[in-house]
Amino acid sequence: MSPYSETPSAALLPSGFADLLPGEAEAEARGIARVMEAFSRHGYQRVRPPLLEFESSLLGGSGEALSEQTFRIMDPSSHRMMALRPDMTTQIARIAGVRLQDAPRPLRLSYSGSCVVIGTPGRESDRQVSQAGVELIGPDSAQADAEVVALGAEALQELGIDGVSFDLSMPALLLGLIEGAIPEGERAALIHALDRKDASAVEELGGSVREQLAVMLRSAGPADRGLELLSQVDFPEKIRGHFDRLKASVDAIRERSPELRLTIDPVDVRGWRYHTGLCVTVFSTTSREELGRGGRYLAGQEAACGLTLRPQALLRAAPVPDARPRCYVPVDLARADLVELHGSGFATVAALGRDQDPAAEAQRLRCTHVWRDGVALPL
Amino acid sequence: MSPYSETPSAALLPSGFADLLPGEAEAEARGIARVMEAFSRHGYQRVRPPLLEFESSLLGGSGEALSEQTFRIMDPSSHRMMALRPDMTTQIARIAGVRLQDAPRPLRLSYSGSCVVIGTPGRESDRQVSQAGVELIGPDSAQADAEVVALGAEALQELGIDGVSFDLSMPALLLGLIEGAIPEGERAALIHALDRKDASAVEELGGSVREQLAVMLRSAGPADRGLELLSQVDFPEKIRGHFDRLKASVDAIRERSPELRLTIDPVDVRGWRYHTGLCVTVFSTTSREELGRGGRYLAGQEAACGLTLRPQALLRAAPVPDARPRCYVPVDLARADLVELHGSGFATVAALGRDQDPAAEAQRLRCTHVWRDGVALPL
Repeated sequence: MSPYSETPSAALLPSGFADLLPGEAEAEARGIARVMEAFSRHGYQRVRPPLLEFESSLLGGSGEALSEQTFRIMDPSSHRMMALRPDMTTQIARIAGVRLQDAPRPLRLSYSGSCVVIGTPGRESDRQVSQAGVELIGPDSAQADAEVVALGAEALQELGIDGVSFDLSMPALLLGLIEGAIPEGERAALIHALDRKDASAVEELGGSVREQLAVMLRSAGPADRGLELLSQVDFPEKIRGHFDRLKASVDAIRERSPELRLTIDPVDVRGWRYHTGLCVTVFSTTSREELGRGGRYLAGQEAACGLTLRPQALLRAAPVPDARPRCYVPVDLARADLVELHGSGFATVAALGRDQDPAAEAQRLRCTHVWRDGVALPL
Repeated sequence: MSPYSETPSAALLPSGFADLLPGEAEAEARGIARVMEAFSRHGYQRVRPPLLEFESSLLGGSGEALSEQTFRIMDPSSHRMMALRPDMTTQIARIAGVRLQDAPRPLRLSYSGSCVVIGTPGRESDRQVSQAGVELIGPDSAQADAEVVALGAEALQELGIDGVSFDLSMPALLLGLIEGAIPEGERAALIHALDRKDASAVEELGGSVREQLAVMLRSAGPADRGLELLSQVDFPEKIRGHFDRLKASVDAIRERSPELRLTIDPVDVRGWRYHTGLCVTVFSTTSREELGRGGRYLAGQEAACGLTLRPQALLRAAPVPDARPRCYVPVDLARADLVELHGSGFATVAALGRDQDPAAEAQRLRCTHVWRDGVALPL
């Protein structure tokens, strides 16, 4: 007797790890293939880093932010510590900076694969996370930001996901304003108040920049209205460039994707640990979870902008693709008939002997059709 | 400065782990997609188990054979030991036996994914291994064996791999013969001699079955000639069924795939740790490595026959697929033109601003075409 048959099925897998069953697994694979195809059409070339790397390489640079979420394993071969990747962005940055250091810039790379995070004990969430993403490495411009956002929008459209919106933020703008005006010890409470969108606490804690902060709070929402509001704020010269860039990026995105729903949130600074410019979160009206996130960061010493979609979340937001019809066929069906059925989009399920009643057997095997008199007959 | 830029690139990754670069990664992904599509056409439904499971579940049953090759990680959430899968067959058996226990038999499942093995320190070989395979669960018949082999052959044909051959063995036949005639302490030396194909040592160590063993040795090679030779051996009643089944499976494979190159090796018993019937190894004249392996085993308490192809090996054996042509286009190219280019099979690489000399920029970015006067002009 195999050991798992004695275990109650709820405890079969560690929390956060799941089986995808027929239908689900097919939908995920097809979704990833379509997203990767959209990336490829726009000149993003696929790379595939390994599941494990040396800890020093995987968690260096921008990877450090994920150190606490990373499983480690000793390599008996080198006696060095390896880490199971919690994210692929550091790996793509490494490939760009080392293996592809001589490739011309802008360098456009795409990737898909599974990552594993430690998670929070007691909290139910995926610990094996699929990712499918792009990185545009080299240029630091509004056009580059816009290309990445527009590409993400096109990929999601292909999947038939409705009501997609891109929420943009520019943490450097808010952080720059606060750093110039608020003593260090008082910043955390203020940022917390901004994060809660608590206008009266912001009024109280905002010191000399309380008026600017109030406008920034109010400007969260549709991008056009928000930028209009923000443009009335007299930002200090030192951080004015961040506002100009946010506006330029929005303009460039609008030019490429006039119909795309864009929102901005100028007080969103949480959860952006290694980003240096525009930050992007992708939502859909058909789902409560994030479909993806990305933004501008430094890949080694190079400017880079990336976007990572989460196929598991896409799967939950996208319409279920049609399963292909299944035709039950005799074990010795002629090759030509088989090829024709496959060409017409059928999956065939072959008998493994002679059946008394092929139609009944087809039904038992959950087929939609049975081969009779030279045709696929619907059941 | 990011840490990896100081490390010599040879030491970048642990041995046995590799980056696939543009071209390689695309070829692997396309190869896996084509193989999975062949499986799907024949009614094999995709499942996707997780990368990690509890050790007790992953290494129970037939998984025990791989215990020494398996990385383990403590789960901080359940305080139980998890294992990084060294193989997917045990996982598919678990899914069939628990999650899909009520699905009708024969149950046809397919899977693809990465596995990780510890490897042998000092020996250079892949430690992250891609797998793409099928399991046919329920029936125990020559027709079931044949379906799996024929399906593997069809998948390899799709990839354009030449000179594929399937090497069949039936370890139970040899082991049954030896167990009935040779004292336990002398068996290992004999099996070692058979493995080396050392006829004189087999003559010396073969006791009362030396003649049968000599014929089995000589019958290694093309299946028809080998079975002809073996049919002259007077096998004891108890194991005669294994020979009959080998012959029936070869006949059933021949009926489905008359052109397939089949060899048999009746003295091949090494490396088959949990198999109970027909064992299959896939080779090609274009490669020295195994392209895949599989055979008959017990999935929990159910009869099962599976075949696992190794995409990395397939990649090295298959012709390189054509890369799609790349056309350099202006940043504001009309949507309709873009769609047409993509429809004609082009990847587009967009400018991120105005170029002085688009053709020169296209060349620098390794494009094959540049957009000029409304068409994609070859460079």
